[in-house]
Amino acid sequence: MKSIGQVAILSVLGEPVNAPSFRVITGQVGSMGIEKVVAAVETSARREGLIPEGRYRGEHALYHAVLEALHGVCRGQLELGAILRTAGLRFAVVVGPMAEGQTAEGQWLAVALYGHIGAPRKGFEHEVIGLGINHV
Amino acid sequence: MKSIGQVAILSVLGEPVNAPSFRVITGQVGSMGIEKVVAAVETSARREGLIPEGRYRGEHALYHAVLEALHGVCRGQLELGAILRTAGLRFAVVVGPMAEGQTAEGQWLAVALYGHIGAPRKGFEHEVIGLGINHV
Amino acid sequence: MKSIGQVAILSVLGEPVNAPSFRVITGQVGSMGIEKVVAAVETSARREGLIPEGRYRGEHALYHAVLEALHGVCRGQLELGAILRTAGLRFAVVVGPMAEGQTAEGQWLAVALYGHIGAPRKGFEHEVIGLGINHV
Amino acid sequence: MKSIGQVAILSVLGEPVNAPSFRVITGQVGSMGIEKVVAAVETSARREGLIPEGRYRGEHALYHAVLEALHGVCRGQLELGAILRTAGLRFAVVVGPMAEGQTAEGQWLAVALYGHIGAPRKGFEHEVIGLGINHV
Amino acid sequence: MKSIGQVAILSVLGEPVNAPSFRVITGQVGSMGIEKVVAAVETSARREGLIPEGRYRGEHALYHAVLEALHGVCRGQLELGAILRTAGLRFAVVVGPMAEGQTAEGQWLAVALYGHIGAPRKGFEHEVIGLGINHV
Amino acid sequence: MKSIGQVAILSVLGEPVNAPSFRVITGQVGSMGIEKVVAAVETSARREGLIPEGRYRGEHALYHAVLEALHGVCRGQLELGAILRTAGLRFAVVVGPMAEGQTAEGQWLAVALYGHIGAPRKGFEHEVIGLGINHV
Repeated sequence: MKSIGQVAILSVLGEPVNAPSFRVITGQVGSMGIEKVVAAVETSARREGLIPEGRYRGEHALYHAVLEALHGVCRGQLELGAILRTAGLRFAVVVGPMAEGQTAEGQWLAVALYGHIGAPRKGFEHEVIGLGINHV
Repeated sequence: MKSIGQVAILSVLGEPVNAPSFRVITGQVGSMGIEKVVAAVETSARREGLIPEGRYRGEHALYHAVLEALHGVCRGQLELGAILRTAGLRFAVVVGPMAEGQTAEGQWLAVALYGHIGAPRKGFEHEVIGLGINHV
Repeated sequence: MKSIGQVAILSVLGEPVNAPSFRVITGQVGSMGIEKVVAAVETSARREGLIPEGRYRGEHALYHAVLEALHGVCRGQLELGAILRTAGLRFAVVVGPMAEGQTAEGQWLAVALYGHIGAPRKGFEHEVIGLGINHV
Repeated sequence: MKSIGQVAILSVLGEPVNAPSFRVITGQVGSMGIEKVVAAVETSARREGLIPEGRYRGEHALYHAVLEALHGVCRGQLELGAILRTAGLRFAVVVGPMAEGQTAEGQWLAVALYGHIGAPRKGFEHEVIGLGINHV
Repeated sequence: MKSIGQVAILSVLGEPVNAPSFRVITGQVGSMGIEKVVAAVETSARREGLIPEGRYRGEHALYHAVLEALHGVCRGQLELGAILRTAGLRFAVVVGPMAEGQTAEGQWLAVALYGHIGAPRKGFEHEVIGLGINHV
Repeated sequence: MKSIGQVAILSVLGEPVNAPSFRVITGQVGSMGIEKVVAAVETSARREGLIPEGRYRGEHALYHAVLEALHGVCRGQLELGAILRTAGLRFAVVVGPMAEGQTAEGQWLAVALYGHIGAPRKGFEHEVIGLGINHV
């Protein structure tokens, strides 16, 4: 019985997930600019129809979920290149109920980010994860 | 071929992990005080011998890894009860190489936290995750 | 033609506002604990029916709007007594469209806080304001 | 009987204010760079003589007041374009006593910012306000 | 030719300083509460006459200088016991010009904090320093 | 009997230090970019052999020590030019025991930064200091 956060985390790790109640997309982005990470996730979610095109509400929900996930990635300051580090991330965006069969609270959106952060130099990096959840 | 972060994340989710190169402990803590979460993780890690008793170096490494994981959990301000929220968390502490078979960089320590955060009221909460990694 | 933020700000200042599209409540709270401010706003909004009783969605939206407003009040660290200061605040919670007659984006919620912050000593304080807006 | 913060807030909203004890300037700035907002406010205040030209003291007071106001605008991280958002703001700078007729504490300076923040896309934005107050 | 910051830093370290243009006080405080550190510095400065009794202006300047110094001590979150750490600090408060003989910019105030931070356990700690400067 | 933090602070101030147990390097960097400060310190420390070339562990320790020192310099937000300020800094990197003769806890690394921060305009600036300490 998976919950929306578990679906997002397992999906971003590339683990198999059986969760028919949820819509899930994944992608990847590497950058020294936080704004590139935000844009990559938003573009994917919009193109795949997880949030409706042309309306602000869904974008607002997604934007805050991405920022919350980035707090787990950045652990203190939402900055990458500005403090001389780079990130290579996979992302998953999930829309659905709080958990399989738990529909009383309506639809929610989860963003998970997983990958590596470190100096702009091969191998000088370690793993990071972040998760943001918002109502839609 | 698992890495230290993956081992920590899958362990804290309760997923099966086959990772013989790593020492792993798990536990749980629920509190409105960040300091209780820190204490629970430190006490477990010390008691199980993941960091040596009576030396500051290991504690310093673990302390900063826990704080980094808490940034993913708190997403902005390292506060729980002080901003009227509570957290119920499982934790995993892992010691080992950066990844199975990748020993050139020596021993590292990972702390993963996973659970729910929200109002001090049953069901008014959503999932969170955090991961902190440090050299030991 | 008032917008939701203007209605919240003018209401919290005690200025007259003519805005029939919005539901508005006001109240006040003085405390050295952030959690008391959050609780006062949430209790008022729930009691007056601005967010539905017994459901998490509305509380989640309101909670984040209050925290955002508190960033304007605290300007750096979401702390009051913990850094030896106290706040005497009025609050306004507003539910309605983005602006009068601008209904395409559905319902939003605004929280405004206005008052004084300073040392726990009469007259040793200055004014603060904060505003948080979220989709509901 | 207006106070310095009320004068700043009402002025930045474009509301009429009768406050003969205060000097008030207003202006506007739209940007994805925080530094542009700081520069616009500082340049206006210097040109209009609210802070003396060529001395650091007044600039120091104004700089910190602007940053404090920006905390209300940014609500967590003093960043705009770096986290893929843009702001269109009006500003007011006010110099005078704490309140009309309350001169015992000398001269103070208030900076208010009000406008919209959001995605760099028309209509995908909501209102924000911020206020910073400092002694001069 | 000493500057105000150098006088504060050397004084808090207990190094000899010859700086006749400056008034300097020192003291010490150990606590798990940030508010205790703020109170100790403010009480000393008021009692020794570095800021005038009964006026808010000087207290406002001092309060912000202490908070800025605490950022150097806390390095990320202005919290001590709330994240399970304690601090034993010496403090110095200095009032005078920007530097010996450099009087054009009037009087300034510097707060330096130096000591140890760490787990509430003897020897599990390392050194910290912080400096805050404000106009008075 | 000097400690590692005292050696770093006195060295960065240009004061004489007699501390044979420690390796010390100093340098300087002026910039509106935090990443330039980080790079200058890392490059010096690597070139002078304070951290081993080609291994991530030492770089990870140094990177976090530099960021901690930058918290003292920036006092709230790890940003320079992005909030319209510039910094001219001297730095000292020290490797050795916690204090002369106190070798039980192994080797540690300290980074001290000292200089001026302010508007990008001559004389519109004041002093800052920061210190970061990490295990190596």
